[in-house]
Amino acid sequence: MRYQLYYWPSIPGRGEFVRLALEQAGAEYVDVAREKGKGMGVAALMRGMADARNPHPPFAPPYLKAGKLVIAQTANILLYLGARHGLAPRDEAGRLWTHQLQLTLADFINEVHDTHHPVGGSLYYEDQKPEARRYAAQFRKERVPKFLGYFERVLKRNPRGTRHLVGAHLSYVDLSMFQVMTGMHYAFPHLMAQLRRRYPLLIALSNRIPAQPRIAAYLASPRRLAFNNEGIFRHYPELDARKTARR
Amino acid sequence: MRYQLYYWPSIPGRGEFVRLALEQAGAEYVDVAREKGKGMGVAALMRGMADARNPHPPFAPPYLKAGKLVIAQTANILLYLGARHGLAPRDEAGRLWTHQLQLTLADFINEVHDTHHPVGGSLYYEDQKPEARRYAAQFRKERVPKFLGYFERVLKRNPRGTRHLVGAHLSYVDLSMFQVMTGMHYAFPHLMAQLRRRYPLLIALSNRIPAQPRIAAYLASPRRLAFNNEGIFRHYPELDARKTARR
Repeated sequence: MRYQLYYWPSIPGRGEFVRLALEQAGAEYVDVAREKGKGMGVAALMRGMADARNPHPPFAPPYLKAGKLVIAQTANILLYLGARHGLAPRDEAGRLWTHQLQLTLADFINEVHDTHHPVGGSLYYEDQKPEARRYAAQFRKERVPKFLGYFERVLKRNPRGTRHLVGAHLSYVDLSMFQVMTGMHYAFPHLMAQLRRRYPLLIALSNRIPAQPRIAAYLASPRRLAFNNEGIFRHYPELDARKTARR
Repeated sequence: MRYQLYYWPSIPGRGEFVRLALEQAGAEYVDVAREKGKGMGVAALMRGMADARNPHPPFAPPYLKAGKLVIAQTANILLYLGARHGLAPRDEAGRLWTHQLQLTLADFINEVHDTHHPVGGSLYYEDQKPEARRYAAQFRKERVPKFLGYFERVLKRNPRGTRHLVGAHLSYVDLSMFQVMTGMHYAFPHLMAQLRRRYPLLIALSNRIPAQPRIAAYLASPRRLAFNNEGIFRHYPELDARKTARR
């Protein structure tokens, strides 16, 4: 089956978590809004959103067409792909645990987004800079250590070893964790430099992912989108920690 | 099996979505943090969070113990309970669709929370009142119509009729929708009075839920917690729309 992924063409955003899973699975897919031609492009994405014949309309991108299914919500798409492509444990307990971690990452990603848009997504960052500074201060001080500390603990406690968040094999949540760590380094380089000794297992996990052959090929391809200041992970120096002279 | 639900004892919060599903299922459960005695109370909830022997630690309440499983993330708990108690379709497409709607409701609930805590959950509302007013203005004007309009459309498009969000039978997402609509009326009474003609199907759905015999018994019992200004849905008149003289 050839999947069709629908997501904004200019940012990695939430679509990237789906792309990483599709790439690691070696699945055939079309990144519809990034292709040109008939039935492609952003127009096709918008048409899919507005399609009144679809009884299961997405609220927002990303959404994935898989045969007759139209699936939205990033974590839901990964739940589906994980089961189909061996990117999650087969047993119910493992499946739920992987999904639980993905939902917790989704919560973290929402907070990352709110660092630059605390008042609302409909306003520009430039119109909410003072609020963003206040939000980012508590995010750096309390939320980042809480979330990353949690995932470090999950790695440490994994009965099958510290190389994966779930069990003894790579799962979609490892791929998502890589994307989050990479995004955090892009958006908050000084903060991450200060914190890096606290999360050795997370950093090691995230450093191993680009060595996966299919991920390596993907990262080197034009299919991979770079972070930029239109996405979820944005680099605004005023929201990052201050540079520390030495550690 | 007797479930153990762990959630803060003083607010409906996210725990309420789980309670409504357990009650409709007629499931046996203990609401641990609200009970007194050995192994009960908030101390038991905190111990469960900190339990270093649990390889699947929750990031935050609610979490549910089901035999050997410890499941966290509200939507994940409902995914599990829905399959077990006939509160979601059995087929994959229906199961994913129900979960997708629940995740979209979870996104909306996060935004409801942010109306009074736009700068961060670690600060008091009193310390972020100007930001909250700004957030709430765009929430009322753009986000509420976007989310409620979406769910109204989902009801209208349901090929099995407009009585349920999914298929021809009650599912956990109908119960969650009831809780959200009830919470919105508590938190934003003037806004909801202004909007109510736009969402006849959602309002009808939400009005039918308390007539379900098990839900009726639950709502009349001391197990049901009232909304209050410590929870997600809070009534701050300054964040609501202004009262309109006539419509």
